[in-house]
Amino acid sequence: MLDLAQRARAASRALASLSTDEKNRCLTAMADVIEGAAPRLVEANALDLETGRSLGLSAAMMDRLALNPARIQSMATSLREVAALPDPVGQVLDQRTRPNGLHLSKVAVPIGVVVIIYESRPNVTSEAASLCFKTGNATILRGGKEALHSNRLVADLLVRAGRDTLGERFPSDAIQVVPTPDRDAIPELLSLTQYIDLCMPRGGEGLIRAVTAASRVPVIKHYKGVCHVYVDAHADLEMAGAIVENAKCQRPSTCNSAETLLVDRAVAAEFLPCLASRLASRNVEFHADPASLPLVQIAVGNRPNVVRIATPEDWETEYNDLVINVAVVEGVEGAIAHIARHGSGHSDAIVTRDEATAARFLHAVDSAAVYWNASTRFTDGFEFGMGAEIGISTDKVGARGPMGLAELCSYKWIARGSGQVRG
Amino acid sequence: MLDLAQRARAASRALASLSTDEKNRCLTAMADVIEGAAPRLVEANALDLETGRSLGLSAAMMDRLALNPARIQSMATSLREVAALPDPVGQVLDQRTRPNGLHLSKVAVPIGVVVIIYESRPNVTSEAASLCFKTGNATILRGGKEALHSNRLVADLLVRAGRDTLGERFPSDAIQVVPTPDRDAIPELLSLTQYIDLCMPRGGEGLIRAVTAASRVPVIKHYKGVCHVYVDAHADLEMAGAIVENAKCQRPSTCNSAETLLVDRAVAAEFLPCLASRLASRNVEFHADPASLPLVQIAVGNRPNVVRIATPEDWETEYNDLVINVAVVEGVEGAIAHIARHGSGHSDAIVTRDEATAARFLHAVDSAAVYWNASTRFTDGFEFGMGAEIGISTDKVGARGPMGLAELCSYKWIARGSGQVRG
Repeated sequence: MLDLAQRARAASRALASLSTDEKNRCLTAMADVIEGAAPRLVEANALDLETGRSLGLSAAMMDRLALNPARIQSMATSLREVAALPDPVGQVLDQRTRPNGLHLSKVAVPIGVVVIIYESRPNVTSEAASLCFKTGNATILRGGKEALHSNRLVADLLVRAGRDTLGERFPSDAIQVVPTPDRDAIPELLSLTQYIDLCMPRGGEGLIRAVTAASRVPVIKHYKGVCHVYVDAHADLEMAGAIVENAKCQRPSTCNSAETLLVDRAVAAEFLPCLASRLASRNVEFHADPASLPLVQIAVGNRPNVVRIATPEDWETEYNDLVINVAVVEGVEGAIAHIARHGSGHSDAIVTRDEATAARFLHAVDSAAVYWNASTRFTDGFEFGMGAEIGISTDKVGARGPMGLAELCSYKWIARGSGQVRG
Repeated sequence: MLDLAQRARAASRALASLSTDEKNRCLTAMADVIEGAAPRLVEANALDLETGRSLGLSAAMMDRLALNPARIQSMATSLREVAALPDPVGQVLDQRTRPNGLHLSKVAVPIGVVVIIYESRPNVTSEAASLCFKTGNATILRGGKEALHSNRLVADLLVRAGRDTLGERFPSDAIQVVPTPDRDAIPELLSLTQYIDLCMPRGGEGLIRAVTAASRVPVIKHYKGVCHVYVDAHADLEMAGAIVENAKCQRPSTCNSAETLLVDRAVAAEFLPCLASRLASRNVEFHADPASLPLVQIAVGNRPNVVRIATPEDWETEYNDLVINVAVVEGVEGAIAHIARHGSGHSDAIVTRDEATAARFLHAVDSAAVYWNASTRFTDGFEFGMGAEIGISTDKVGARGPMGLAELCSYKWIARGSGQVRG
C-alpha cells in the first residue's frame, strides 16, 4: 500500500502540470479506447460475474456488476462529456492587495491523491477516475472484490489511452486499482496521511461507517439520505401531492428520495386521504404515526401490508424502496424539530405558499440542500448544473451537497511581493 | 461526553438563529465582563499555576499558562475586534437559475459544533470561543489539564455575558469546556459524528497526530510548519538576505518561520557567506549540507555549536528556534523536488527576478501558501486581511492556509421552486 500511495503522490504532481487541452485529449482518447475494447471488457466482466455467482450475490447486485455493450458505450459517452466540461483548476477564487503591497490570490488546485471506495458497478471506475483526472487528481480505486477483473481492465485501458496521447507526460500511476481484495489493505492505505489527501466512500451506510472509522485522512461522504417533505397549512395541496409523489416514487433507490412525509395538523385531514390514494396507486407502503394512521387508512383500508404504525427506527431508516413514513406535525416548527431529530442532513423540502414560513424552514433546517416548493430529487450534480457528479456530501467541512468538478479541487494562496518582510 | 455533545448540538441550532447585531452585542458584553473579572481570573489562574509548578512545567510553558492584567486586557480587546468584523454567515457564495426555473443559491452557514483542542494558553479559550460564536458555531473547548480553572472561568464569564445580553435567546451551552482532564474523554467525544461537525487541534505535532488518529469527525490541522526559502540564481541577493533573515529570525517560534534555506548552486558561493554572517549576528545556528557547509564556515568559522552537517532528520524538523538548514540545489527544479520531499505543505517562498522561474515555483510547490519575493511569515489570518485567525490548515479538504471567520463556515444549497418535479 505504501508503494501504491507513493506512486500516486508522484503521479499527482505530474498531473498538476498538465494543461486543460492535454487532459481533454486524454479523456477523448480514453473514450475511444473503452469503446474499442468492448469485447475484452465483456470477457473480463464474465470472470467477475462468475465470482459473483459463486459468492451468491443477489440478482440486483449481479445486475450492478454486469457490463454489456450498452453500458460500455455509456462509459465512453460519459468520458467525452467530462472532456467537454470546463476545467476548474487554476480558477482565481479570490484576490486582494494588502496595504504593504503584497498581492494575494486564492487559486483552485487539484486536491492531490483521492481514494475512492465503492461497491460493485465497474462503470464507477471510469466515471470516478475521469472526474479526478480532469481536475488533476491521482486516484486509487477500490471497488467490490467481485469486480476486480473489470475494474483493473478499465483502469489499464484509461492509462494506456493517456500514455498513447501524451507519452511520458502522462503518469502511469494517475489511475490505480488496489490490486488485492485483502480487507486490511484499506486501513493501511487510509493511514498514509503523507500521501493520501482525501477518501470518498460510496455505498451503504455500513461501508461508509467502517471507512470513516478506519481513516486518518479526510473523508467526504454521506452516511444515508433520510429526506423529508413537509406539507404546510398554506401549501398548494395539488402541488404538494405532485412533489411528494415525485420525491418518493420517481426513483426510490436514490439517496435524494423522500423517506418521510410531514403534514401540518391543520391540513392533515384534507390532504392525507387523497395523497394516500395517490401513492397507493404507485404501490407505496405507509408507516404512519398514530395521528396520520386513520387518515391513511380512510384511503387504503386497514391492510397491514400497505399501512402499519411506524416504529421508532422507521423515522431514521433510508428505505431505498416504495415505503414512506407519515407523521402529523404542529406547523413548521414541528417539522423543523422532527427533521433536526431524525434527519440525515441531506435534502429536505417544504411545500407552502407562505413566504415567511418557507424562509423559516429554509433557514432552520440544517441540511445540504433545502427546497421550497420543489422535489428533493434535484439534489444531484447534473440537476444543479455542475455537469457531473462524483458524490453527495452531508459533511460540513469541504464540499456539501452534490460534488462536481469544482468540488474536487482545493485551493492555494499565491502571494506576489517585492521584498516584503514582516515588521 | 454524549450529554455535552448533544447540548452543544442543541445550542448550535439556537446560535444559527441569532442576528449579527445580537451576536455583536454579546461579544461586546463579553469583553466588558472579562475586563471586570480580571481579579477573579488572576485568582483562578493562580490555582492553575500551582498545578503547573507541581507538574514541573518548563518556564516557557508556565509563561504560556499565566494570565496577568495585560493579557486579560488583550483578551477583552480581541473580543471587541471580533465584534467589529463582518459576519460571513448568510453570505450568498453562488447562485443560478436552472432551465426548469429552479433557483439555487449557495449560502454560508455555521459549521455547527466545533471541538477545539489546544495546549496551555487560557487566552485561546476566549479567542477560539469568540470566533466560533461570531460565526454561529457552538464550541467544545479542551485546553491543557493544567489550565482547567482558568479555562472554565473564561467560558463561564463569556456565557454569563451572553445570557445578560440576550436572556433565553443565548444558549448556555454555546461555549463549553470539557469538564474532566480524563484522556479517554477525547476519543469518546470525537466518535460522536452525529453531534460534532469539526475538530481543530492546535499544538505540537504529537497532539495533532493523536487527535487525528482518534477522530471520526473531520479534523482540520497542520501537523507542522517546515517552511522553505529558495534563493534563485536570478534573485536580488540583498532582498533575498532580508527575506531569509525575516523568515527565520522575526519570530522563530511560529509555524510560518523558515526552517530551511535552499540556494541555487549558481549563486551559492556569492550569497551564502554573506548570508551566514548576517544570520550568525542574530545567533542563528546552521545545519548545512556538504555543498553549503564550507560556504557557511567561511563566514562563521568551524564552530560545531554554530554550524554542523545536516542529518537526514533535520530536513523535516520544525525547530521553532534560531536554527536553519541550508542546502545547495540545482535551480528551481532542485528546490521544487526538495520541498516535495521534505516540506510540510505550509508556506514556501522563492526569491527571484525571473518571472517564468517564479511562475514555475508558485505552480509546482504544493503548499497552502507560496510566496514570490516575500517572507513566509505572512501566512497569518491578520496579514491576509481576514481580520482574525483561528488556525492554519495544511489540509486539502475544507479550509487551506490561514482560517478566519469565513473559513469557520460551511454552506447549504437553498432551492426555490414553483412546484418543480424531476422527470
